[in-house]
Amino acid sequence: MTDTITRRNMMELGAGATLALTTGSVLHAQTGGQASVGYAVVGLGKLSLGQILPALQRTKNAHLAALVSGHPDKAKKVAAQYGLPETAIYNYENFDSIAKNPAIQVVYIVLPNSMHADFTIRSFKAGKHVLCEKPMAVTLEECERMIAAGKAANRQLMIAYRCQYEPVNVTAMQLMRKGTVGTPRLVNAVMGKQTDLSDPSDAWRLDMKMSGGGALADMGIYGINATRYLLNEEPVEVRGWARTDKNDPRFKTVEDMIAWQMRFPSGAIGDGSSCFSQPGTMAWQVVGSERRLVADPGCFYGGNSVRIVGGRNDPQPQVAEIDHFGNEMDWFGDVVRGRAPNVSPGEEGLQDMRIMHAIMQSVANGGQTVKLDTAYRRTYDPATVVGVRTSA
Amino acid sequence: MTDTITRRNMMELGAGATLALTTGSVLHAQTGGQASVGYAVVGLGKLSLGQILPALQRTKNAHLAALVSGHPDKAKKVAAQYGLPETAIYNYENFDSIAKNPAIQVVYIVLPNSMHADFTIRSFKAGKHVLCEKPMAVTLEECERMIAAGKAANRQLMIAYRCQYEPVNVTAMQLMRKGTVGTPRLVNAVMGKQTDLSDPSDAWRLDMKMSGGGALADMGIYGINATRYLLNEEPVEVRGWARTDKNDPRFKTVEDMIAWQMRFPSGAIGDGSSCFSQPGTMAWQVVGSERRLVADPGCFYGGNSVRIVGGRNDPQPQVAEIDHFGNEMDWFGDVVRGRAPNVSPGEEGLQDMRIMHAIMQSVANGGQTVKLDTAYRRTYDPATVVGVRTSA
Repeated sequence: MTDTITRRNMMELGAGATLALTTGSVLHAQTGGQASVGYAVVGLGKLSLGQILPALQRTKNAHLAALVSGHPDKAKKVAAQYGLPETAIYNYENFDSIAKNPAIQVVYIVLPNSMHADFTIRSFKAGKHVLCEKPMAVTLEECERMIAAGKAANRQLMIAYRCQYEPVNVTAMQLMRKGTVGTPRLVNAVMGKQTDLSDPSDAWRLDMKMSGGGALADMGIYGINATRYLLNEEPVEVRGWARTDKNDPRFKTVEDMIAWQMRFPSGAIGDGSSCFSQPGTMAWQVVGSERRLVADPGCFYGGNSVRIVGGRNDPQPQVAEIDHFGNEMDWFGDVVRGRAPNVSPGEEGLQDMRIMHAIMQSVANGGQTVKLDTAYRRTYDPATVVGVRTSA
Repeated sequence: MTDTITRRNMMELGAGATLALTTGSVLHAQTGGQASVGYAVVGLGKLSLGQILPALQRTKNAHLAALVSGHPDKAKKVAAQYGLPETAIYNYENFDSIAKNPAIQVVYIVLPNSMHADFTIRSFKAGKHVLCEKPMAVTLEECERMIAAGKAANRQLMIAYRCQYEPVNVTAMQLMRKGTVGTPRLVNAVMGKQTDLSDPSDAWRLDMKMSGGGALADMGIYGINATRYLLNEEPVEVRGWARTDKNDPRFKTVEDMIAWQMRFPSGAIGDGSSCFSQPGTMAWQVVGSERRLVADPGCFYGGNSVRIVGGRNDPQPQVAEIDHFGNEMDWFGDVVRGRAPNVSPGEEGLQDMRIMHAIMQSVANGGQTVKLDTAYRRTYDPATVVGVRTSA
């Protein structure tokens, strides 16, 4: 096992994303199952039940090792369903005893945002690595404490930006780096979904104390993050306008819709919107001097595509479907074993939080422009490292 | 002939846009060719040569009666090509003598924007009706003088917003009025093209004195206009950010890219961008609480479509191609004969000018929000009247 990261581009492997991503799995399979990383999944909401736990049945470098839930009955039922012994069930009180369970290497935090910091820091104290859902937390200060705790424990913290590990978006980033669109002018993102107060997985998102924000924090973050990874630069100014019907019982504490604009040092502009009262939409497009890239949908769990528009008979990218969550967990399994780079560490999550907070600050001040510190730089460009893992 | 405008909806005719639009032509054909309206086309640039003159060969209610050009050789050649006698050629100096030519009922002004006001007012003085290309003029004051001159002469002034007479956009408006998207949340428009200084039809667009604005005035206007006719309301606040590379020889006096945001009384937001250094793009989408409407392309001369996204097996609109320019000229032929409403009179052109000037003002003031007078209301909603003309 080596920790050298070869920067061989996924495209150079000659058969696109799927082959490249499969390559890692094949390499791993050759090393034997014991190298697979044990995951404790914290929180048994819709995302865990519908996506993460099923995906962990198909992963090669990751497997389900424990469940953490505040609902004992639900936890027992799910554990039985996935063949876990009851000893692998934890609750929020005895969570810290995971320190004594060597079968757990990674804690995947799938909790309301307000609980991210606490459980991340407790996980690090227990000696575990952390994969944490987006948005990273509720406050910037929490993000900073999470990063510091990971460093103090010498453990990895990865924010679950699945699109940074997902072939359609990675292919788009690669097209951007190759200059396919020419000079990038604008990235537009339209992100939204329909929320339902009676759905427990929505209810906490509609509670400012638990979510830290409405549509922007939950869905807009995909657009903000995509704009950054497509342009491969960081905004220097942002502003936003919001629109919320306060008579709608869903929007007593969080915003419904925010539209944002961002300015980048290259001169490119990012604009977009996020809304909690529209059908599920995760669309983005890049407008360049020569071509556009259009992805609609671009960030769904599946069925995404990216189209090149405006050129002359450009071959269209052909990207095979993968399991986004399984791939991400396999990837982080490799990260903690030193076989792959952590493309979306805590600092990446903090950067989106900074931008979103600046947009919310702008909204609170009637849309005034808010300047941003430009110091952050991504450690790894997903376009150049994703799909490449070192051999065992 | 009657001047009653029946508000029978195009859709109610049972076979969509094409049939409805054809109906007018059929009705006219029954009245005999002498009722066809004679057009003087002023300006023989790319738009006239490539679109307008060929379209006038296929119109039923309109025919080419004269050419007005500053280039006598070109005018002679074009006149010969279209079978016009040399007596039907005018230049900018003797233009006013069209008053003595009863074969001309309409003047179609296809000149640089800075010449619109002058030629419109001269046309009215000559007793003619005016179809004027967009944007309406360079200044708001010019627009007001154009409107006043039309009223004084008791002649029609129509701004050539072909998309307000074009089935894909009219169908989209009708879907909006029917509530197909639910509550409208946001309209996003991406409008742009690649400009070339060495192309005479671009050169004047890149000269602030002749154009009155860059990408916003030339291409963004489609997005502004579409946002308004899709939402069927008027913005109360706007703002913009621009980005122009002043080292690019094309952009010495006009802007390259402007991104705008508009707020509407309903709470809907309009955002979009316009750019003079990107491939031809005329895309818009409406985000509603239930569905989206996506048109990409939405405002090209042909090949447009509108898609309903986010519903469950909604039947997709099927809209047949028509000749946009021919249809528009036929329509105005009916307007001047009292058989169809003037859906896009001077006031409609002035309203877009007001909005664009407010956006430019915002850009000049670092993106500050500019409030707009909300008094303007469209006289006719294209969604309810287009496609319906009275019988002869």
